[in-house]
Amino acid sequence: MAAAELTDLVERARTGDPRAVARLISLVENDSPLLRDVMAALVAHAGSARVIGITGSPGVGKSTLTSALVTAFRGQGRRVGVLAVDPSSPFTGGALLGDRVRMQEHATDGDVYIRSMATRGHLGGLAAATPQAVRVLDAAGCEFVLVETVGVGQSEIEVATVADTTIVLLAPGMGDGIQAAKAGILEVGDVFGVNKADHDGAEHVVRDLKAMTRMVEREPGDWRQPIVSTVASRGDGLDEMIDALEKHHAWLAESGELESRRMRRTRDEIEAIALGTLRQRFSEIHGDERLDTLAAEVLRGALDPYAAAEEVVDAMS
Amino acid sequence: MAAAELTDLVERARTGDPRAVARLISLVENDSPLLRDVMAALVAHAGSARVIGITGSPGVGKSTLTSALVTAFRGQGRRVGVLAVDPSSPFTGGALLGDRVRMQEHATDGDVYIRSMATRGHLGGLAAATPQAVRVLDAAGCEFVLVETVGVGQSEIEVATVADTTIVLLAPGMGDGIQAAKAGILEVGDVFGVNKADHDGAEHVVRDLKAMTRMVEREPGDWRQPIVSTVASRGDGLDEMIDALEKHHAWLAESGELESRRMRRTRDEIEAIALGTLRQRFSEIHGDERLDTLAAEVLRGALDPYAAAEEVVDAMS
Repeated sequence: MAAAELTDLVERARTGDPRAVARLISLVENDSPLLRDVMAALVAHAGSARVIGITGSPGVGKSTLTSALVTAFRGQGRRVGVLAVDPSSPFTGGALLGDRVRMQEHATDGDVYIRSMATRGHLGGLAAATPQAVRVLDAAGCEFVLVETVGVGQSEIEVATVADTTIVLLAPGMGDGIQAAKAGILEVGDVFGVNKADHDGAEHVVRDLKAMTRMVEREPGDWRQPIVSTVASRGDGLDEMIDALEKHHAWLAESGELESRRMRRTRDEIEAIALGTLRQRFSEIHGDERLDTLAAEVLRGALDPYAAAEEVVDAMS
Repeated sequence: MAAAELTDLVERARTGDPRAVARLISLVENDSPLLRDVMAALVAHAGSARVIGITGSPGVGKSTLTSALVTAFRGQGRRVGVLAVDPSSPFTGGALLGDRVRMQEHATDGDVYIRSMATRGHLGGLAAATPQAVRVLDAAGCEFVLVETVGVGQSEIEVATVADTTIVLLAPGMGDGIQAAKAGILEVGDVFGVNKADHDGAEHVVRDLKAMTRMVEREPGDWRQPIVSTVASRGDGLDEMIDALEKHHAWLAESGELESRRMRRTRDEIEAIALGTLRQRFSEIHGDERLDTLAAEVLRGALDPYAAAEEVVDAMS
């Protein structure tokens, strides 16, 4: 792509042209060499979007809630971006079929950008790509960017590091209390949603969550995670959810936590890009062959992994 | 720790002393500066353990299956190691209460090593620590090392990169077919277990899995993922599961895939150690303050993240 073409693309994205936005996110997804120029052009125009993460186990209704939130924000006249991040995509190529179906009602709304994003399999792929895709949507004038991700564990934690506010969504019948605690949801959630609140066992989930959140030690002025019951498929509890999001945003701004979360997210992004550069530098110098040779020596017990890593570091520096 | 003390510790671990093994895994978990010497001492004595990953959503019965497999392997007179990796621990400090309860029947068996392992919050924490902990158990004479991890998404994928054989465990009532496909389980699973096979809906899960695995394109000689129904809590289907594991191991060895998986695992380990070294080098040179300054400039739009990363890389090199 010529420099003039890139400048044009960035300009069009800034005015909100959906095709230009989609094109830029593809560059992010593919870790294009053009990204540097794209980010340099966008960075001064980003910083006002509110980033809301939505996470939880498969089947709890994340996409349905996301779609309902989009409808609500659109009703307020706000431009909205949705990133459905699929951490499984290093293997699958990442088609979020279910989500796409649920999001279809927004497909013809020019002020809603919906994007399923795959991340490459390397370490920190999500950490580097998600903030960049958020920046594209932010610079394109989205006031809200919803980042939806499946799963518990590492991916959930990575989403929490990207978002200003993280909604952890649960539903009845998805595992017991100990399991939920184990998945670390207490620590990543700013707002808990208990979806499918009309199903059996929903009250039990709410009760467990209440008991767990009560056990968290808090200082005065700390955020108290609200628990919102929803039936996202018919919009029940949506007003309460939006109210909880507004309250959390106000707390973030007042407490200084908004600034420190965004600082952390940017530090992580810089570090991920730096590590990517170093990794690439190593592969340019030696190719995968050298790493293969080192790995083979470790496997046959002739070299320890730290000595091997030292060779890698020396080659990178 | 003095050099002589470390040598003694490694020697005791090699003879299978459980306290020495536990101590070495703690060194791994805490990313101790002694690790390098530990790995150098162990690397020549490792390489024979079979590493089996067990993954799936919370509540499907992973720990129950793990415990049943331990019983079966112990019945064959084999020494067994279990690593319960908790990817949520960057936030929780990682107490796998539920698992520990389920594993208790093996607590007094001197030839079973069970360890809940937390990994620190940094990128690739799991990628670096898990193969090292496996190496400790391997060198301590474990013929089988079972690596259990909670969750779908990134953590599941990381387990797949550590294991020779990955069991993906499902259970009825944990989400529909599309959701399962989305979580990438088809690609990471070598063997599928459908646990709680006596519950409603188990047949439906088996049918969905069959349909999905049929859609995968295979070359002649490729592995065909078996689907094993189990009721792990009472040992039903255990013989079939062990048979599937044996068959997969034979296929791995014949096809050359065992070697290439172990190569990949070792490459990932070396790379993770190298990146950790570089990260530490940066923080030694500049401290977090410099990174904070760079992040603040990116946040106010004065610097693009790539230019910031370049400064980081220059400082590291």
